[in-house]
Amino acid sequence: MQGKLSGWDDTIVALATAHGVGAIAVIRVSGPDAIGICDGLFPSKSLAAQPSHTLHVGFLEHSGRVLDEVVLSLFKGPRSYTGEDVVEISCHGSPYIQEQIISAITAEGARLAKPGEFTQRAFLSGKMDLAQAESVADLIASNTEASRRTALHNMRGGFSHVLQGLRERMLQFSALIELELDFSQEDVEFADRSRFFQLIEEAQHTVGGLIESFRLGNVIRNGVSVAITGKPNAGKSTLLNSLLNENRAIVSDIAGTTRDTIEELINIEGILFRLIDTAGLRETEDVIETIGVEKSMKKMKQADLVLYLFDVQEETPEELEAAQWIVRGQNPQYLLVGNKADTIGLEAAQQKFSGDDVWYISAQTGFHVEQLKRRLVEKVVQGQLQSENTIVTNARHYSALQQVQQSIYDIRKGLDDQLPGDLLALDIRRCLHYLGEITGEVSNEDRLDYIFSKFCIGK
Amino acid sequence: MQGKLSGWDDTIVALATAHGVGAIAVIRVSGPDAIGICDGLFPSKSLAAQPSHTLHVGFLEHSGRVLDEVVLSLFKGPRSYTGEDVVEISCHGSPYIQEQIISAITAEGARLAKPGEFTQRAFLSGKMDLAQAESVADLIASNTEASRRTALHNMRGGFSHVLQGLRERMLQFSALIELELDFSQEDVEFADRSRFFQLIEEAQHTVGGLIESFRLGNVIRNGVSVAITGKPNAGKSTLLNSLLNENRAIVSDIAGTTRDTIEELINIEGILFRLIDTAGLRETEDVIETIGVEKSMKKMKQADLVLYLFDVQEETPEELEAAQWIVRGQNPQYLLVGNKADTIGLEAAQQKFSGDDVWYISAQTGFHVEQLKRRLVEKVVQGQLQSENTIVTNARHYSALQQVQQSIYDIRKGLDDQLPGDLLALDIRRCLHYLGEITGEVSNEDRLDYIFSKFCIGK
Repeated sequence: MQGKLSGWDDTIVALATAHGVGAIAVIRVSGPDAIGICDGLFPSKSLAAQPSHTLHVGFLEHSGRVLDEVVLSLFKGPRSYTGEDVVEISCHGSPYIQEQIISAITAEGARLAKPGEFTQRAFLSGKMDLAQAESVADLIASNTEASRRTALHNMRGGFSHVLQGLRERMLQFSALIELELDFSQEDVEFADRSRFFQLIEEAQHTVGGLIESFRLGNVIRNGVSVAITGKPNAGKSTLLNSLLNENRAIVSDIAGTTRDTIEELINIEGILFRLIDTAGLRETEDVIETIGVEKSMKKMKQADLVLYLFDVQEETPEELEAAQWIVRGQNPQYLLVGNKADTIGLEAAQQKFSGDDVWYISAQTGFHVEQLKRRLVEKVVQGQLQSENTIVTNARHYSALQQVQQSIYDIRKGLDDQLPGDLLALDIRRCLHYLGEITGEVSNEDRLDYIFSKFCIGK
Repeated sequence: MQGKLSGWDDTIVALATAHGVGAIAVIRVSGPDAIGICDGLFPSKSLAAQPSHTLHVGFLEHSGRVLDEVVLSLFKGPRSYTGEDVVEISCHGSPYIQEQIISAITAEGARLAKPGEFTQRAFLSGKMDLAQAESVADLIASNTEASRRTALHNMRGGFSHVLQGLRERMLQFSALIELELDFSQEDVEFADRSRFFQLIEEAQHTVGGLIESFRLGNVIRNGVSVAITGKPNAGKSTLLNSLLNENRAIVSDIAGTTRDTIEELINIEGILFRLIDTAGLRETEDVIETIGVEKSMKKMKQADLVLYLFDVQEETPEELEAAQWIVRGQNPQYLLVGNKADTIGLEAAQQKFSGDDVWYISAQTGFHVEQLKRRLVEKVVQGQLQSENTIVTNARHYSALQQVQQSIYDIRKGLDDQLPGDLLALDIRRCLHYLGEITGEVSNEDRLDYIFSKFCIGK
């Protein structure tokens, strides 16, 4: 098997499972000699003679030493992850044994794989495009339902299909331009001149949507920070506990989520929220408290969303007005939450603060707390998450899409200014170039190496 | 598939690879519903209709959600690790995805496996005896060549074969006793009365050898502690560096080897040595130094081996004599090493200390340092390691073997004292009982649960 870019006739090997002691570990070998090398270490039968997608139990031997009893998974190219011949060795999970087996395989001519090199080969042999390959790394790093779903959607080619559609539209457009060039000497009026504008508008719409989705993609990938603020007796810690109650265990089960002392993580409907408890908001002349208030202001500014919590009984409508004014000054994304609605009753509270958009809860009794969670999600995703929309999560794609958008804008401007067709064609080529960068049709090896180097070894 | 002990008609699931993020992770499902449950999550084809030992690529789905793109390894009982139907799911290595897949499988009726439960099932369904099953855990924990080889030898049934031979001898012996009982009324002289003694002597020899091997087995499993002592200028740190030089990287590559600040780990010919640098030996009146010397004494006593290092130029034969006397008082296992042999020359040194068994080196130039390593190994293994001898590494087996030895001793004493045959038969039964405890032919469920609970989950 050789891919689009030639130059790797070598065979690579790496540990594919997590480091450390487990019941088993899997070592992956890929390349033209994968089967030959493993055959030499596996005396019980000839792997080359076996059909693809079969499992073989036996002892692995090297230099007269039995290394381990293993199960070999045989994938013959091109029906494999990389498109090459692949053997996966499932051995006992001792790091020492893993090391011995990898050493034996390198001694027989394979070399250690670089990070992401298996996926790089999958890309180079045409098994997936670059956007798909990149989402493999996202999938491995996913730690919530939304990040998993988005990465899987993109790995299955969701994003690539949208780009493919866009590319086809640009090619059509290009064809029309060429046609016009051919007839430019003659005074031909094209029947569907409006087709030009329609195509370019569609492209603008698609790219605009993808760029817009990055805000959500970023949320999905990195989580949402919510600064909770309010007067000291508003019930912030009760609310935190009430929000965290059921979800705490789920979040802490996910390895790799680091916890700051002042941050609490909560997974709501597949999105990771980082709840930041801030100090109170009241004005003060005490120097130390002033610092506290300044810090609160900074946290509100940095957060994706501010939740202002108040006591419906204690707070006056004027105080709420003043607080809203301060909060809005720091962050336009905010939510007013009236706590202790059970004390004066929901209707009385609604009447008291009738001029404001307030969500009423009781953190103590749990009244409307579930709905508050849903509101937090709604505030962030604005209905985009549940749909099967393609979401851009990768900063590299986002930046390339911005350049696509710019070139489409240039094309449109060129049309409006009635630029000659050959200049328009240049802009179109630039647009196609940036699209190709995302899917990897336009790429240089250095950039590829950089993209795949962010993967973990063994993938 | 049902095993020798019935009672598990349930299906179990666990992560089989190490925890944390890897390129891939493997989830193992075993039990009567393993294939049925996985079939329900795998819409692309019917697993039940596929042959055993085959691989299947596709999407795993649950409750209308696509969980991940996976590779399934299908092992139909009894041709599997546990002897039951087994499906291994190779998924993307995100802990979140692992969790989601395991949740889906438990939602469909499997339960989470207890530590070692897969191997326990392999034992209960007769795929391996208890001694073999226990060596699986040893194999996973192995961190040197010798521990790996011994565990693998035992997992392949090496130890079990020796016990099997022993058991057969005891059964023959039992048959002869019964025969004598049958004819006890008559005055029959058995032709091969000496056969009795020969059998019991063979059994004693075998058991004695196995018990003896535990000292080595312990070394293989837990390593050897070597206290290095000598006067401050003898060159201890130079020797430590010289010994560690090439091996340091190898040792630190092995995960899980904890390093004490005063201990250095070195892997020589597959055996783990813990080198402990002790303070000097000279007598002193300084209180603090006295404490240091006392600590040195204690370390020497606790070590498996003491290495006394001295400067062949500075040390007098009388001083060496005195030092030897002190060292021997702490630990009979010691090695005298004359350093800086290059200063006065090997022959002069040999002449100077001709009365003592000294190994001459130069830690500075590396002269004879390699041979010193080999000598350390020789001192520990005394030729037993390279042979294909069966080595007992498990404390439970050691303790059972001691009871086997005691019962053989009782049988022999009974023979000498001409005990009646029915009393001898009791001793034989006791001996067979203890043998059966090792291989698991005699066992109760509590004990089994205890043994397997020391395994990691997923095996």
